[in-house]
Amino acid sequence: MPYQPTAAIIVIGNEILSGRTQDTNIAYIGKRLGTAGIDLLEVRVIPDDEQRIIKTVNEIRPLYTYVFTTGGIGATHDDITAECIAKAFGRKLIENQEALAIIMDHYKGKFYQDQELFNGNRSRMAMMPEDVTLIKNPVSKAPSFQIENVYVLAGMPSVMQGMLETILPKLQKGEPFYYNTVTSNLLEGTIADRLTEIQNAYPMLSIGSYPFYQVPNIGTSLVIRGQDKEMIQKATNEIIEMVKGFGATPQVERQI
Amino acid sequence: MPYQPTAAIIVIGNEILSGRTQDTNIAYIGKRLGTAGIDLLEVRVIPDDEQRIIKTVNEIRPLYTYVFTTGGIGATHDDITAECIAKAFGRKLIENQEALAIIMDHYKGKFYQDQELFNGNRSRMAMMPEDVTLIKNPVSKAPSFQIENVYVLAGMPSVMQGMLETILPKLQKGEPFYYNTVTSNLLEGTIADRLTEIQNAYPMLSIGSYPFYQVPNIGTSLVIRGQDKEMIQKATNEIIEMVKGFGATPQVERQI
Repeated sequence: MPYQPTAAIIVIGNEILSGRTQDTNIAYIGKRLGTAGIDLLEVRVIPDDEQRIIKTVNEIRPLYTYVFTTGGIGATHDDITAECIAKAFGRKLIENQEALAIIMDHYKGKFYQDQELFNGNRSRMAMMPEDVTLIKNPVSKAPSFQIENVYVLAGMPSVMQGMLETILPKLQKGEPFYYNTVTSNLLEGTIADRLTEIQNAYPMLSIGSYPFYQVPNIGTSLVIRGQDKEMIQKATNEIIEMVKGFGATPQVERQI
Repeated sequence: MPYQPTAAIIVIGNEILSGRTQDTNIAYIGKRLGTAGIDLLEVRVIPDDEQRIIKTVNEIRPLYTYVFTTGGIGATHDDITAECIAKAFGRKLIENQEALAIIMDHYKGKFYQDQELFNGNRSRMAMMPEDVTLIKNPVSKAPSFQIENVYVLAGMPSVMQGMLETILPKLQKGEPFYYNTVTSNLLEGTIADRLTEIQNAYPMLSIGSYPFYQVPNIGTSLVIRGQDKEMIQKATNEIIEMVKGFGATPQVERQI
């Protein structure tokens, strides 16, 4: 078996739980990790609550190669992620001089609509646990940090994406995950038996069946996902034949 | 303290973790529960994996008033939710006669593009743990089920929404959650100190600060959320005054 790194995401966000904000970070991170061959196996969404953050971080970090958190690293009272991570690891929260220098260099003496960009509260964003590695922020400059296998990312999608892209080259990779999709107007009930046979013939692949039902647009998308390109192609071809065999026209989207 | 029901969601879905599908169910459920005064405190996204589903269901169900699962209740091999829930509760998986009757009544003898709507695999959707309460499906008819405090919902958004709406009137309600939003071009660093004072003055409210940074569109949205309408109005007014005090123009969206 080749080396298989794994990952989990902890989404720290009252605004996601309340439904006010539609999360898009999970899908983005899931896709990018798949490309890097890192298997995302769990996501937890929790409130901005100290005890919950500490407990969740400590429960999850021994279980996966990498843990990513999103949210709670801004300049206001509700940004408690850094503080909670320090407590989870039993480390002091200190002013990270390297982070402070980056923030000052970027913001000091600059103004945005009469607001000085650097002030006391912006330096709050330099407060981090002791002995961390900084994560660069190519978007809005204020860096975040990595502590052991935990990577603390922003919640704002553009900033989170910029941070993730700076991290990815440094992570241990597995075989990339690929998927092909075969869509048709066949119903799940029609294909289920034959599809089970195909899944059983390819136990290393995950074949997912996703019906859609927006009358008059009814049918099923079949997703063939895995790490072995040749096997994915073979299974995809069998599924295409199956769809044709039931008299339907497959629409095929291939990643490979 | 008034009675405060709580909830968690378990999203069962390889397609969410792989990033292929953008989940929208969490935000929908979060919003609807907020309106019903039920506090959504945790979401877990896990793969279509028997052991993980059983473990997660049993870990979570003692912790919250209500648990909702989404996904994995169709007619194909990858739909293992019902079976796993039966195992989690130590109950037999049986053919639910009431569910079967609903499915047969709707589908038997009907065809869609030459496919008989009722067949052996569709009856798979009637397999449920013993002694459950059915959840009606106003969209595509095949029902799902409730077992103790666990409500098993479809993954397809339209069907999930239909099921949730049939459940909501039967749940115990709390005081509804409301939120107002005050947006301006102020930076987090500018408002942080004053905002902390306002948050400290209203410990029963949760005041969230969400910066946005899409040059030239830069600023912060402040969300004032809670269950006490009068208190929310007061805090909203203080925040509006704060924004004006910094020379900016607040844009206010009110739920109340």
